[in-house]
Amino acid sequence: MARTDVGPGQPPVEQQLIRWAEAFAARTRADVGEGIAEILALSGATDVISFSGGFPDPSTFPGPILADLLRELIEQEDASAFQYAPTAGLPGPRDFMASRLEALEGARPAEDELLITSGAVECLELAGKTFLDPGDLVLVEGPTYLGAIMAFRSFEAEVQAVAMDDQGLDIVALEAAIAARTPKLLYTIPDHQNPAGVSLSTERRAALVDVARRHGFLVVEDVAYRELGFDGERPPSLWSLGPDVVLQCGTFSKTFFPGVRLGWAAGPAEVVQRLTAAKQLTDQCASPLAQRLLEEYGRRGHLDRGIAASRGLYGQRWRLLGDALERHMPGDVTWTRPRGGFFSWLELPEGADAVEVTRRAMREGVAVVPGLPFFSDGRGSRHVRVAFSRVADEDIEEGVIRLGAALQART
Amino acid sequence: MARTDVGPGQPPVEQQLIRWAEAFAARTRADVGEGIAEILALSGATDVISFSGGFPDPSTFPGPILADLLRELIEQEDASAFQYAPTAGLPGPRDFMASRLEALEGARPAEDELLITSGAVECLELAGKTFLDPGDLVLVEGPTYLGAIMAFRSFEAEVQAVAMDDQGLDIVALEAAIAARTPKLLYTIPDHQNPAGVSLSTERRAALVDVARRHGFLVVEDVAYRELGFDGERPPSLWSLGPDVVLQCGTFSKTFFPGVRLGWAAGPAEVVQRLTAAKQLTDQCASPLAQRLLEEYGRRGHLDRGIAASRGLYGQRWRLLGDALERHMPGDVTWTRPRGGFFSWLELPEGADAVEVTRRAMREGVAVVPGLPFFSDGRGSRHVRVAFSRVADEDIEEGVIRLGAALQART
Repeated sequence: MARTDVGPGQPPVEQQLIRWAEAFAARTRADVGEGIAEILALSGATDVISFSGGFPDPSTFPGPILADLLRELIEQEDASAFQYAPTAGLPGPRDFMASRLEALEGARPAEDELLITSGAVECLELAGKTFLDPGDLVLVEGPTYLGAIMAFRSFEAEVQAVAMDDQGLDIVALEAAIAARTPKLLYTIPDHQNPAGVSLSTERRAALVDVARRHGFLVVEDVAYRELGFDGERPPSLWSLGPDVVLQCGTFSKTFFPGVRLGWAAGPAEVVQRLTAAKQLTDQCASPLAQRLLEEYGRRGHLDRGIAASRGLYGQRWRLLGDALERHMPGDVTWTRPRGGFFSWLELPEGADAVEVTRRAMREGVAVVPGLPFFSDGRGSRHVRVAFSRVADEDIEEGVIRLGAALQART
Repeated sequence: MARTDVGPGQPPVEQQLIRWAEAFAARTRADVGEGIAEILALSGATDVISFSGGFPDPSTFPGPILADLLRELIEQEDASAFQYAPTAGLPGPRDFMASRLEALEGARPAEDELLITSGAVECLELAGKTFLDPGDLVLVEGPTYLGAIMAFRSFEAEVQAVAMDDQGLDIVALEAAIAARTPKLLYTIPDHQNPAGVSLSTERRAALVDVARRHGFLVVEDVAYRELGFDGERPPSLWSLGPDVVLQCGTFSKTFFPGVRLGWAAGPAEVVQRLTAAKQLTDQCASPLAQRLLEEYGRRGHLDRGIAASRGLYGQRWRLLGDALERHMPGDVTWTRPRGGFFSWLELPEGADAVEVTRRAMREGVAVVPGLPFFSDGRGSRHVRVAFSRVADEDIEEGVIRLGAALQART
């Protein structure tokens, strides 16, 4: 969009006296960064092999069937898809989502335990707005989804990372952190974690719910990648184990498509009702058109068929990436071996600088994300996230060769 | 959605120990009510003549052309409509919106002065999150849109109403309020106001911008009904007069359809950039699918044709309502005479109780909204909002006859 020589672009100089930043709220001085905006802004780059954004592959997006469904809604004069909807969601899409959870998790949320959201990050924002006073403690996995760190920091919370290993969140480290101070919230991605690519073991899931009950805090469970296990394996969700202490935040961005902006929140009624009240002010309701398209797409079986195909696609990409890493990484680099999702997490040797490696990689023609923003405490300087979800099969090895070149050039 | 006997609906009694409300943030104790949720929840009622919600008429919603446009996007493999988008919006839809503002307002927002939002209320939430510390003052019109009162209160601001008359906001009363205390924000709906149905005069628009510049606060201009003047008349927008001190919040809910959840924010670059950073956490980006459908619908002229038709439709409904009010209202009831938008605002005589009248009206088979929630200070007890936008022409007089019966029954 070009600037023009007239109009709002150029107010007269004598009027540029107001320094808006001085009027901003205290919470804006908690610098949450522009991490998501930066990654999303890169989404158009085509001149590099991009392992950067956690984007689903466009081949998983719906085909002409979606236009057929929209035509049906219009021809049936289904005004519900076009008018304002109740804030918690339209009845049909709510029933579809509740039934889906029942099939997936063996438990169905009651009427007041489910809210349709505009993606998963809104669920985190609403939880933050509902629970967090300045200085409150939120525990997260180290590393974790940077949108979560940003959402909780934007309400002036203290965000503290708890250690993970190849079985996910370390429960002993968690108990130690809680012994020092009880958190308001604990945020976790138990399945195919972003960015670490590991999953929480079944044993630890039960232990985590037990800890939350004993200490009385809410577990915010992000299940963005839960249905994308390569072999379909799915340990019990935290929500199914502890519906009294767990708020599950889900999204259809990875299973339907991101452009639809749809997700859900399932949790204790008192919490979900408060989130629903807060959602009146973010967008009043998630797009009713999107809700009805998802419902029809899902009820006719397209969603489940698409997810099955996506599992195969992403599993294949991981195998190609894993093989290429074995072949082309220097011997002192290690990485996680995901069983689902979009990510592997690379650890570089002592003394390496992931930001510098990322810059060199970009010059070699491959994009990755350095580890720093995934931690809340300055760690991550030797880590790199590699997202394999949107790189064409035939480009994966070449991308890894370029990354290898960037790594060899270090020192 | 039926409760089931197993699962999350019924956690074991011994686990219901956590009283979540005790963990909620201080801001949740500013009771913002569930005004929007309540009105939206009524949207399905069909057994009464409903003058309640400010809903557009379904006959204004797009026809099969929308399905054709979606089919084109899919066939052209336009992944931008389905993938994540930059937080500020996709380039094409941003250019479409900027060009549209240029045509409507004679001024084009620069690249960093425009943000695509998920409807207008999100703009208010983002402005509240960006500007408001607990105790900050926000001035609003008395009465005003209850979503605005809720959004600002949800950040613990003090919301104070300034008097209006048939020319809109009273600038003398505004100056008096500012003399007592400078606000962080002033929120106004200059065109066909919700709920009062009046518009701000051209003279007062210039005066308001002047006041904001002299005192250094941001004017939040809600233009939800601006393009729906019955005769197409449009005084200059506040944003066009004061792009350095005005944040314009717009919505396509009344001109395209509510189910699309799309709007815009145009204002000083420093403010818009901060709102964009905050929007990363509400929904990351407004639905790219919705953005692309709007752009294609608009560029092919359907939006402008639809708006012209809507002006005729709503103008006709107001004429029917105005005539019926003349015929059937008791002599001691007065009302505003809108020249656009969806609303007329009724004032009942001294001693009347609008909540009680509303209850009686519902028993007579007609729904209206009592005035109380449109004020921030307990006023409005003798006012009733009548929205004529979604009542079929042939039902309007019967609705007014029923309302008249409810009013006659008072004392």
